[in-house]
Amino acid sequence: MDALEEAILKSGSAAYVAFGSSQDADMRYLTRFSTTDPIVYIKKPGEQGTVVVSQMEYERARRESTASVMTRSEAGLFEIQEEEKDRWRALARMIAGLVHGGVLVSPHFPYALAKELSTLVEVRIDRAALVTMRGRKSEWEIGMIRQVQVAVEEAMQTGITMIRKAGIRGGLLSRGAVPLTSGMVRAAMHQILLRRGCTPADTIVACGEETAFPHIRGEGALRADEPIVIDIFPRDDQTGYYSDMSRTVCRGEPAPEIREMFWAVSEAQDLAEARILPGVTGEEVYRAVVDFFSELGYGTGNSGFVHNLGHGVGLEVHEAPSLGPSGEVLVQGNVVTNEPGLYLPGTGGVRLENIGVIEEGGFITMTRFPRELVP
Amino acid sequence: MDALEEAILKSGSAAYVAFGSSQDADMRYLTRFSTTDPIVYIKKPGEQGTVVVSQMEYERARRESTASVMTRSEAGLFEIQEEEKDRWRALARMIAGLVHGGVLVSPHFPYALAKELSTLVEVRIDRAALVTMRGRKSEWEIGMIRQVQVAVEEAMQTGITMIRKAGIRGGLLSRGAVPLTSGMVRAAMHQILLRRGCTPADTIVACGEETAFPHIRGEGALRADEPIVIDIFPRDDQTGYYSDMSRTVCRGEPAPEIREMFWAVSEAQDLAEARILPGVTGEEVYRAVVDFFSELGYGTGNSGFVHNLGHGVGLEVHEAPSLGPSGEVLVQGNVVTNEPGLYLPGTGGVRLENIGVIEEGGFITMTRFPRELVP
Repeated sequence: MDALEEAILKSGSAAYVAFGSSQDADMRYLTRFSTTDPIVYIKKPGEQGTVVVSQMEYERARRESTASVMTRSEAGLFEIQEEEKDRWRALARMIAGLVHGGVLVSPHFPYALAKELSTLVEVRIDRAALVTMRGRKSEWEIGMIRQVQVAVEEAMQTGITMIRKAGIRGGLLSRGAVPLTSGMVRAAMHQILLRRGCTPADTIVACGEETAFPHIRGEGALRADEPIVIDIFPRDDQTGYYSDMSRTVCRGEPAPEIREMFWAVSEAQDLAEARILPGVTGEEVYRAVVDFFSELGYGTGNSGFVHNLGHGVGLEVHEAPSLGPSGEVLVQGNVVTNEPGLYLPGTGGVRLENIGVIEEGGFITMTRFPRELVP
Repeated sequence: MDALEEAILKSGSAAYVAFGSSQDADMRYLTRFSTTDPIVYIKKPGEQGTVVVSQMEYERARRESTASVMTRSEAGLFEIQEEEKDRWRALARMIAGLVHGGVLVSPHFPYALAKELSTLVEVRIDRAALVTMRGRKSEWEIGMIRQVQVAVEEAMQTGITMIRKAGIRGGLLSRGAVPLTSGMVRAAMHQILLRRGCTPADTIVACGEETAFPHIRGEGALRADEPIVIDIFPRDDQTGYYSDMSRTVCRGEPAPEIREMFWAVSEAQDLAEARILPGVTGEEVYRAVVDFFSELGYGTGNSGFVHNLGHGVGLEVHEAPSLGPSGEVLVQGNVVTNEPGLYLPGTGGVRLENIGVIEEGGFITMTRFPRELVP
């Protein structure tokens, strides 16, 4: 029995119910089905989960989903809709008719549907079971993330090579006669990702002062002697899995503060890599890095180490477990990032982000890419 | 006063509250801010909306969001968390502390947060105001969708040219010495889209029997004399707006059933274009097409016209209003697709999809691309 079945029984519910499109990572995980329009998923203990889809999606869902498939018509929705015009009440009646008992739902379950369901059956919230299941990646899932990471490293190589080979004219990086821009590097990396069947999103190629803010995407001409942060986190088109990686590079001569930060971030990453183990909490690893940076005079407020040390990666680019102030116990099978960073407004930032799997003996880094400030 | 402010006042609430990342289209619409991690949005009548973000996102949110910005610390979250470890209860207390009164939320608001908020303040659901607001596109929004549509047509042109120029060897389309595949056409189209700053998703290039199922993505070698359905619906990276377009083409000699279906679908599209008007319901336009197809012997069950006639397009690729069996009244500013299709399992399918704006005088089609079965 898996953690979800246990949670259903333990809560005294008859089934776990989800509602959403496959943009919802829980739905994608439970059904392995990709759909733009919302569907209903019902899982009873001891039975295979079932998705309720439109007639039009029936054939595709049967081919693609790991769940068994029922049409809305088979689920009785159209008969219910003859009496009940409200969309949410009709769906609630359909679900209650299929489940015959209390339902367990995600904290993110739509409030309107939960409210209508509550008038018919007991609705309870699962806060941990599905998060825990999704956190423990299977061998297949790890393979899928690894495949994305291979594409990410190929893209990163392409981007960094463009920067390394750039000319310098009047302080700006150049490619032939034109300035080398953030957009040009991003576009070249995206072409690689696409060819590898991945969809990129909001890839960061930030330069100089922009790099002091971890999530600024970056734009315009890249400059010599300044830090360039590249952060790539695409999703595989077929499977929906992500990977995530960052590097900081400089063409020319970086300022002493940036060299110092790069050294500190590299050391912090090594320190964290050695401490990520099953049974340790994400908070402990995060605190160890905070303490290390603190001894060097870097804080955690508006400047210094302003974000978490890492996060789970899977069907969401940020998911459990967290390596941050409220980080839970790490377990075997977790796939997490190890991404210390330092940021000084007015000067710039440095981030190095690897990804890896937590195995019995420790953290096995998937990322193979070198860390070089001046490549 | 906009429709949302009216709804807040009418419901007797003190504010509208949203929670989510910018994957949530409502959040994107309300804040114009792109973020992977969930944020809180609070809108009181007569005031600008406010987003509550992490310290790390403060600077970026101030630059990029149309809302005013507050950090979690300013919102009192960290003090609350010292007493309250549960994430949802802590967030609920933070929101209640900022709003001082009842809250209005989306039907999709997370159940766990609504449940905790309900213990502190009145929580009411807005079923219509935000949907209506998002449905009436501004000139700026229409411009953004039009820009995506230009990229889509350039991509479509590239894909169809590859098919038109393909050789034929043993019934398969070929490009030089190799078979021309669905993946090759998709990749070439995606390169165009990327160069135009759009992220493609699940682009359909389906051939032959696959085309009988509207959402099968398609794979493998493309074949001569068979229908090829191309459906492209990318999203602009910067603005988050979509466009959506389909064409059906054939290299070689299509079967008489396919020619017949192509004619019927073209006629249906013209018929619908003339009937889409402010004040008409989406259902009426849909029924007119159903009736037209019905006279030609095509049904709406497992084969024939198996999907809706169209849907709104904006920050979601499928949004209100619907041109289907439960289609609401259409209004000026709606951007909708007009996409009749016919599907015969065992034979294939034909779909033609345009997009346009509903103006005072009728439906203004943005799509400029020709409809030719054998291009």
